Amino acid sequence: MGIDLDRVRAETPGCRSGVAHFNNAGSALPPQAVIDAVNDQFRLESTIGGYEAAEVSADAVERFYDAIAGLIGAGRDEIAYIENATRAWDMAFYAIPFRTGDRILTTTSEYASNAIAYIQIAAARGVSVEVVPDDEHGTISLEALEAELAKGGVRLVAINHIPTHNGLVNPAAEVGRLARAAGALYLLDACQSVGQLPVDVNEIGCDMLSATGRKFLRGPRGTGFLYVRRDVLPGLKPPFLDLLSAEWTGRESYELRDDARRFETWERYVAGQIGLGVAADYAVRLGLDAVHDRVGGLAARLREALAAKPGVTLLDRGAHRSGLVTFTLAGHESAAVKAALREHGVNVSTTDGSHQRFDAHAVPSAVRASPHYYNTEEEVERLVAALPSP
Amino acid sequence: MGIDLDRVRAETPGCRSGVAHFNNAGSALPPQAVIDAVNDQFRLESTIGGYEAAEVSADAVERFYDAIAGLIGAGRDEIAYIENATRAWDMAFYAIPFRTGDRILTTTSEYASNAIAYIQIAAARGVSVEVVPDDEHGTISLEALEAELAKGGVRLVAINHIPTHNGLVNPAAEVGRLARAAGALYLLDACQSVGQLPVDVNEIGCDMLSATGRKFLRGPRGTGFLYVRRDVLPGLKPPFLDLLSAEWTGRESYELRDDARRFETWERYVAGQIGLGVAADYAVRLGLDAVHDRVGGLAARLREALAAKPGVTLLDRGAHRSGLVTFTLAGHESAAVKAALREHGVNVSTTDGSHQRFDAHAVPSAVRASPHYYNTEEEVERLVAALPSP
Repeated sequence: MGIDLDRVRAETPGCRSGVAHFNNAGSALPPQAVIDAVNDQFRLESTIGGYEAAEVSADAVERFYDAIAGLIGAGRDEIAYIENATRAWDMAFYAIPFRTGDRILTTTSEYASNAIAYIQIAAARGVSVEVVPDDEHGTISLEALEAELAKGGVRLVAINHIPTHNGLVNPAAEVGRLARAAGALYLLDACQSVGQLPVDVNEIGCDMLSATGRKFLRGPRGTGFLYVRRDVLPGLKPPFLDLLSAEWTGRESYELRDDARRFETWERYVAGQIGLGVAADYAVRLGLDAVHDRVGGLAARLREALAAKPGVTLLDRGAHRSGLVTFTLAGHESAAVKAALREHGVNVSTTDGSHQRFDAHAVPSAVRASPHYYNTEEEVERLVAALPSP
Repeated sequence: MGIDLDRVRAETPGCRSGVAHFNNAGSALPPQAVIDAVNDQFRLESTIGGYEAAEVSADAVERFYDAIAGLIGAGRDEIAYIENATRAWDMAFYAIPFRTGDRILTTTSEYASNAIAYIQIAAARGVSVEVVPDDEHGTISLEALEAELAKGGVRLVAINHIPTHNGLVNPAAEVGRLARAAGALYLLDACQSVGQLPVDVNEIGCDMLSATGRKFLRGPRGTGFLYVRRDVLPGLKPPFLDLLSAEWTGRESYELRDDARRFETWERYVAGQIGLGVAADYAVRLGLDAVHDRVGGLAARLREALAAKPGVTLLDRGAHRSGLVTFTLAGHESAAVKAALREHGVNVSTTDGSHQRFDAHAVPSAVRASPHYYNTEEEVERLVAALPSP
């Protein structure tokens, strides 16, 4: 069953604002159900008190864990609520007890924040960070990955599922099989993929997965989550602890929680957590296959229309392409293209090449247009028509 | 000038809900201005997109830094927005490059989450954690602190300004003078004091200060901030880095931001940040001296009324007392007292003795009633009248 476009648009107040929102890889427009969930909780907090409201809404808070678990095929005990994808990724990455000489393998398209963390840990712990070359499609080379894993000493394979600056999709499940066979931990940054396509942690075989609420999941800003496979949990040491993640058992002792919530902190944006749970349920109800089909179809249509436009250079690589469409327009800075489109009520974003120092293909800046299933074919035409002349 | 009670109540929707909210040490009722700021930003995000809304509201986001700086007498470059006080404290604490043999001095009333972090670091880095005894008032003994500092090797003095489980106020400024004289870093957990009384980082002399939005500041849940003194910033290593806190300058290098925002992460609950800035401005407008006077007056009145009630044991210590009033009621579990008061529309909370393992005076559980300036004298009477018979 496909997406009922009229219905999803009717359920999205932002679709009535006149904006053609092609910045879903930045932050998407939430559906009314998410807006209501956040507003209702915040209103309750303001009316009867924050802790009292959390007690009233305890079921909705707990629902979050089931909703996210259902979305990615995990157990509810494998899910932690964390305030954004970066911190979710951090909590997993910095929890790995690296030893001197350990190797980390990553991709050319890795996210800048992750790369900075690698460099920090490399210096602090004597770990080597190695960038696996691309294959002929521009995604991580499985052959090269396998060869590197065979050399031994790889503690961690950490890649993104879909990079932020290019429309490729990395072969996450194939990477998972190789990592597992080699006995390496596998951390997947799924910030751009969760909510855009089906993500199943068991099919992918990742040990840890981080994601955000605000992008393709259409949740609130300031929300994210971490998945940690039950088996690997005991080997990870949360970099921060508090009275939720650990129990203070004696003057000089504590005991960690035995589920993934050992990566959480007690205080949180409760309204956002409830809203993110609602967003996950909403995505599951629509069906991630249908979402993927429609996002992929709109992105393909956009690429086709852009390719026909003089002066446009499409930059997307990968055999399998995502909903992130990246391009440059001859004679125009990307920032100027973004501004010109904004004048026509079209939202896009730009990429920053200084955030892509592992990627020899990265350009100084590109325009990034990222449709979601609620965008229309007419909006795609509007975007292309609104581009400045080259 | 005192608090205009009618006005602050009129500006607080929660005051019209019929609830007598004495859980301000948990999470206070926000004023309409804060509610509007959060709602407006979330509505804008839902209407035109999250990143586009942040661009529109860039001034309000920037105002946050001035508002918080103004509130605590800091520079705007010394302020970081962090999603809660625990993580703010963590970012500072875990940034200290402890060496084997370093000593940490703290108080008997230290917060459980901080204590767990001490224990974690003590084991990981060979640091000793020492609890300075109380003076005759039950607050940290300045004499004992001075004697411990004189022994040398103290890297950090870390205390709370106002503990979560007892109505005492620690002599933060006197501790600051001693810590500075001894060349130790000074980290103040001001979670319960900011918004309740005047807090000036230069008068106190702390190097780092963490606080939350949701308590006496009346900001939204899921917000907090960290202050880091300009001078000590270069010596601290943020435990996590991302593309906001550091610039990725080369394949194997990065450069840290030169202000306190090196402790932030790029993605955040933007609506909450704006709301917290509004809350800080609101508190400053009322005047923290006036707030302190009224909170202290209501708390004193409450203690007096409780003292006259048969079966009540007041637990608060300290020469200077805070707005947190703690007590037990003979013949009743604290949780039952809380539930009984809730039946009468009175919100209080309970303390958990297992979170107070440094404190020989801590009871297994107490009732905690924490008035704010918007509470009325009638509500105080209502609370006391609604207590179950002993």
